[in-house]
Amino acid sequence: MGETHKTDVAIIGAGPVGLFAVFECGMLKMQCHVIDALEGAGGQCVALYPEKPIFDIPGHPSIDAAELIAKLEQQAAPFNPTYHLGHRVEKLTASGEGWRVETNQGAVIEARAVVIAAGCGAFGPNRPPLNDLDQYEGTSVFYLVKRREDFRGKRVVIAGGGDSALDWTIGLADIAERIMVVHRRPKFRGAPESVAKMEALAKEGRIDLVVPYQLHGLVGAQGKLEAVEVATLDGAVKRLEADILLPFFGLAMDLGPIAHWGLNVERNHIVVDPKTCATSAPGIFAVGDIANYPGKLKLILCGFSEAAMTAHAIYPLVHPGEALHFEYSTTKGVPG
Amino acid sequence: MGETHKTDVAIIGAGPVGLFAVFECGMLKMQCHVIDALEGAGGQCVALYPEKPIFDIPGHPSIDAAELIAKLEQQAAPFNPTYHLGHRVEKLTASGEGWRVETNQGAVIEARAVVIAAGCGAFGPNRPPLNDLDQYEGTSVFYLVKRREDFRGKRVVIAGGGDSALDWTIGLADIAERIMVVHRRPKFRGAPESVAKMEALAKEGRIDLVVPYQLHGLVGAQGKLEAVEVATLDGAVKRLEADILLPFFGLAMDLGPIAHWGLNVERNHIVVDPKTCATSAPGIFAVGDIANYPGKLKLILCGFSEAAMTAHAIYPLVHPGEALHFEYSTTKGVPG
Repeated sequence: MGETHKTDVAIIGAGPVGLFAVFECGMLKMQCHVIDALEGAGGQCVALYPEKPIFDIPGHPSIDAAELIAKLEQQAAPFNPTYHLGHRVEKLTASGEGWRVETNQGAVIEARAVVIAAGCGAFGPNRPPLNDLDQYEGTSVFYLVKRREDFRGKRVVIAGGGDSALDWTIGLADIAERIMVVHRRPKFRGAPESVAKMEALAKEGRIDLVVPYQLHGLVGAQGKLEAVEVATLDGAVKRLEADILLPFFGLAMDLGPIAHWGLNVERNHIVVDPKTCATSAPGIFAVGDIANYPGKLKLILCGFSEAAMTAHAIYPLVHPGEALHFEYSTTKGVPG
Repeated sequence: MGETHKTDVAIIGAGPVGLFAVFECGMLKMQCHVIDALEGAGGQCVALYPEKPIFDIPGHPSIDAAELIAKLEQQAAPFNPTYHLGHRVEKLTASGEGWRVETNQGAVIEARAVVIAAGCGAFGPNRPPLNDLDQYEGTSVFYLVKRREDFRGKRVVIAGGGDSALDWTIGLADIAERIMVVHRRPKFRGAPESVAKMEALAKEGRIDLVVPYQLHGLVGAQGKLEAVEVATLDGAVKRLEADILLPFFGLAMDLGPIAHWGLNVERNHIVVDPKTCATSAPGIFAVGDIANYPGKLKLILCGFSEAAMTAHAIYPLVHPGEALHFEYSTTKGVPG
């Protein structure tokens, strides 16, 4: 049995939105504990795409995911959050006026409010249904790009039609010897700007678009890929000589224990009140990709705004009776 | 009569939120024209507090207002927005499927959608009711700090109880010879973290708290201040020897012509649908400080999120019939 901690706010998830929630709570004089199943802060940003440049963080024309996380940790640091990393939250139960969070490492955190910033929950890649796939995973088949340099001079097949496929096609075009993009439709589902960039690369002959095709088989031996077979919907097969396959078919979302906490959940997302990010349980809030409300966009920058609104909604729970006059970004005042 | 421009989106206001709206629209392949009454981009950030550090921009532990604006301009630049600076929007009228924007300089912009990101509208400082105030304004009395260095070695009276008074008390403590903070109540209305910092400075004897007092009179000659008189509510007057008075009593909000565009306005703010930031007029949206909805926080970072939601809401107007699959910050895809 581990220690029992008492705090104002327990934040489940140390991704970008969870980290910014520490800052926003700190600005309102609320102390936070942060729990994450991963061994480091950063969530998907660090675990899945640390070197991927992000272009839509306001005020950062381009920032690598890992650098964004480092800056958010630095921004939260003055408020002295306590991190419980490598801890998976197993139980969440009502306790007095607040909540009791228990982790698989035996830590117990008692908090007035809980903020669930768990992203996709316990996530993993969707694996394509190919024979002998497991023999190539980790050597020739990867679901994420940890170091761009690992792909220098390689012939890379990228499969998928979403933003990850597009982003990495663009991100690796200068590094790989050849990139072949396999998608079962001619139309890609991604940021229009990224689609345009990819089409420009194809026009310049710098990448090959292999559409409409889907993955059919892997050719190679002892974990070393020689070719990827692709097929049309009619079954016509062709062979792409390749060293690497990067399938980007999205993440399988699994709420894990969160599904059993009695919250109002729809289609693997927690339903929240957009005014406050309050869930159906008083004192439990959800922000970022795991939260849903009408008009919700799964963007990190929207999660930041949700974190601010949540901190303001939690304030009266932690400081009952104290009026909050907080207008930080604007210049306001009252006659003195 | 100036030129007539045709574009996808006309953005009224070149402050941080207007600039980020250019980026978000650009990501969705929509072209923007941006109109602002000021001669440069940046709105209040540049006009009122260019050197003021902002601490709550996510991913920027501290950034000066002017630098934030420079970065947002850089982020918007790839999308080639057209700026009409020094133009005040005078008329907004329906035109075909969209809107026609006319400025006091004779420019005409026809756009499918309009985003009002006008901050406080036409804003100006609330001036304290003191005799001969105008004789000191611009020489000894200032409503904003353009260059911190101008206050080096000066005896400064800061009046007000909100965030600006607090922020500049903290921001000038190391530069001014003496800072005296005058507020009519002992309690300050500002970020709790800033209140705590100011109280620590007072405890260390580095600033004087003059509470509960209000401004009573100015003593000096030919625009040069010698002292500021302050009084209790009972009328007891005392004299503070000082070179400079900085009254921070907020901004007077004036919607200007916006008030006459037939939008649903309540208490000087435009009422919007929080799902889309749509106003009561189809095709007109409002974001940032000028927009209001239940739970609204006047924070730049919330305005960024509103800009993203608005761009997504405008997309089907500009690109009718084209499905938008845009999941930029998360890693998603479909089997290829």
